[in-house]
Amino acid sequence: MINIALLGYGTVGSGVVEVLETNRESINKKAGEELNLKYVLDLRDFPGDPIQEKIVHDYEVIANDPEIQIVIEVMGGVEPAYTFVKRALESGKSVCTSNKELVAKHGAELLQIAREKNINFLFEASVGGGIPIIRPLNSSLTADEIDVITGILNGTTNYILSKMSDEGLDFDSVLKDAQDKGYAERNPEADVEGYDACRKIAILSSLAFGNQVDYEDIYTEGITKITAEDIKYAKAMGRSIKLLASSKKIDDSFYAMVAPCMVAPAHPLFSVNNVFNAIFAHGNVLGDVMFYGSGAGKLPTASAVVADVVDAAKHLQSNMMTFWSSKKLELADIKNASRRFFVRVEGDSTKVAEIENTFGKVELVDAGIAGEIGFVTGVMTEADFAAKAEKTTGIINRIRLED
Amino acid sequence: MINIALLGYGTVGSGVVEVLETNRESINKKAGEELNLKYVLDLRDFPGDPIQEKIVHDYEVIANDPEIQIVIEVMGGVEPAYTFVKRALESGKSVCTSNKELVAKHGAELLQIAREKNINFLFEASVGGGIPIIRPLNSSLTADEIDVITGILNGTTNYILSKMSDEGLDFDSVLKDAQDKGYAERNPEADVEGYDACRKIAILSSLAFGNQVDYEDIYTEGITKITAEDIKYAKAMGRSIKLLASSKKIDDSFYAMVAPCMVAPAHPLFSVNNVFNAIFAHGNVLGDVMFYGSGAGKLPTASAVVADVVDAAKHLQSNMMTFWSSKKLELADIKNASRRFFVRVEGDSTKVAEIENTFGKVELVDAGIAGEIGFVTGVMTEADFAAKAEKTTGIINRIRLED
Repeated sequence: MINIALLGYGTVGSGVVEVLETNRESINKKAGEELNLKYVLDLRDFPGDPIQEKIVHDYEVIANDPEIQIVIEVMGGVEPAYTFVKRALESGKSVCTSNKELVAKHGAELLQIAREKNINFLFEASVGGGIPIIRPLNSSLTADEIDVITGILNGTTNYILSKMSDEGLDFDSVLKDAQDKGYAERNPEADVEGYDACRKIAILSSLAFGNQVDYEDIYTEGITKITAEDIKYAKAMGRSIKLLASSKKIDDSFYAMVAPCMVAPAHPLFSVNNVFNAIFAHGNVLGDVMFYGSGAGKLPTASAVVADVVDAAKHLQSNMMTFWSSKKLELADIKNASRRFFVRVEGDSTKVAEIENTFGKVELVDAGIAGEIGFVTGVMTEADFAAKAEKTTGIINRIRLED
Repeated sequence: MINIALLGYGTVGSGVVEVLETNRESINKKAGEELNLKYVLDLRDFPGDPIQEKIVHDYEVIANDPEIQIVIEVMGGVEPAYTFVKRALESGKSVCTSNKELVAKHGAELLQIAREKNINFLFEASVGGGIPIIRPLNSSLTADEIDVITGILNGTTNYILSKMSDEGLDFDSVLKDAQDKGYAERNPEADVEGYDACRKIAILSSLAFGNQVDYEDIYTEGITKITAEDIKYAKAMGRSIKLLASSKKIDDSFYAMVAPCMVAPAHPLFSVNNVFNAIFAHGNVLGDVMFYGSGAGKLPTASAVVADVVDAAKHLQSNMMTFWSSKKLELADIKNASRRFFVRVEGDSTKVAEIENTFGKVELVDAGIAGEIGFVTGVMTEADFAAKAEKTTGIINRIRLED
């Protein structure tokens, strides 16, 4: 029997209990031993709930119990999660977490402690919810050098963009609807400003490239400026607008960015809609690969956490090597990254000559919107685009293209 | 240093050598030790090729060399691959293979030998080429009970169907074009009749359900009867025609089938085109998940083989448990499986009353083709459909719907 402690009995925590209960038999079989949930740490009590008798309010009880071999951390936030997790690892307990803030900030250090103690620090659920992506990156794509990783990593924003596209609605009204339905938080900033996706792409990039990518270094732009008109232009181009979190290795430079992009119809991420997430990667020998599924939600996330618990149970005394060193990976300035841009400018067809005078030859896009011109530039650097945009009057919006 | 022997220097075998060479440094780092290709078994010689000095013609050399710890089998076919692989495992050498015939036929037995010897038998490349699917099934989806697994598992047929759809061409002319381009074999039977996909879904089903699914038990229908007119109807319905290999657990019965299906636009497999493969799965707590990538090809397949080699190198003296017992899983008769069917019948609108008299209320589909009627039935069992079709004169074709 393997004893487990659960830190946090919120949405994911209660999902973990439900998954362990629902699939008890097959999970124990795959783990090779019976898993026993001994403690649930939460500040609250849950009278009437079957786990009430397991509730403890003081982490000391768990930290000091040598019977606990695996700790599940689903509290979220950096503190006190970091202190609890570090202490668990240092005392030889493996840890499975869904906490992206913790992993993005302290992943390299916590992996190092796990390695020294010959135990495991696992975090499949921290990116992409139920989608297996961390383990495939670690143990399936090992023959490759990954040069592109691009994800739709935030379900809330993908739901909002899908709904705007399906129903022709504006950002604000869809956000309100999403909040009413519980798909978006009352304070939606972390989602709609791209901060959540930013932490997740920092984790994926650190794993794909082997060195620490600091999320503070990643250029991040949210979806709050995307309008119903932008979506009309995207449709006229046969594209969809998605909040993409991506990192690329070009020659020996690494670029990372979170920004809404107009995705080409042939791209595997083009048709990932609603609350679904997906991660696209390109390996130098493998070519394209994509992982798709439920990026959030109680049970999908809990499924990923419990899969980590099964793996931790199978490797109680052996560290599964993960290549993520604490050495900082210096990202290149995105000013030097090149791509095409879609631009909307106030005016009519008489303005095209002036636009082409600045941007060179452009492709005009007709979305049937009066009083403005939409166009796509050729490939240019972000710096070059910014300089040209500076010289152009009446720019309404600009969105990057992803081909 | 870990010594490796490669059995077979054909397309995949030469890809394995290329991948080991191209990413030597990162592969050795991830394997934790230097991988040394010591022998290449092939009946031919390769004068001028850097591996010529490693060529051996007699398997005895490899079998009797205690330095060889990992054997890569990419010869294809059941014999002599089975004899070679079994002997390698019995003498304590781990085996990595891309051979779907071997795995479908003898997977359970070879896994059992590996378990007894505390080594590994790995076969990521046998299904889905470069797509990570075997390892995710084994070690990522462990918290779930999988109840659906449906794949586009054959690149040749997916290329043919995509091309027929894009260009409005007939099966025969696209097949010829695919053969000229090297995308289809001169003898295309294994692909176009669904036999290849059948072996692959047998492997996936055995892993997903834990017991041996014999490929001979799986109802298999190819794509040779799909016409340009069928594709027109699919387009009129907003659907795409795909060769789906699927298995489902419904209550306590297991169904498996390979057949062309009209896939609904909201289904994740709808837009998997050209030579790409994808595997969709549904878990009872995870929900939907999909894995997408290059299902064949020299380098993608070799990438999966080498990823297995890295894993084997990291687990030289420890078996990574795989749940696939040799106990036969009895499939239910597909006669009892239910779904909707698309049907084309000779005649005009005067025939609708007769059709509805037999099939009940149907949805008519107008693809602008004179002299016939296309319609979609309600949900019914295969047996029920067959009985009704028997009573109907002038049926041109029928294709299953996948929603």
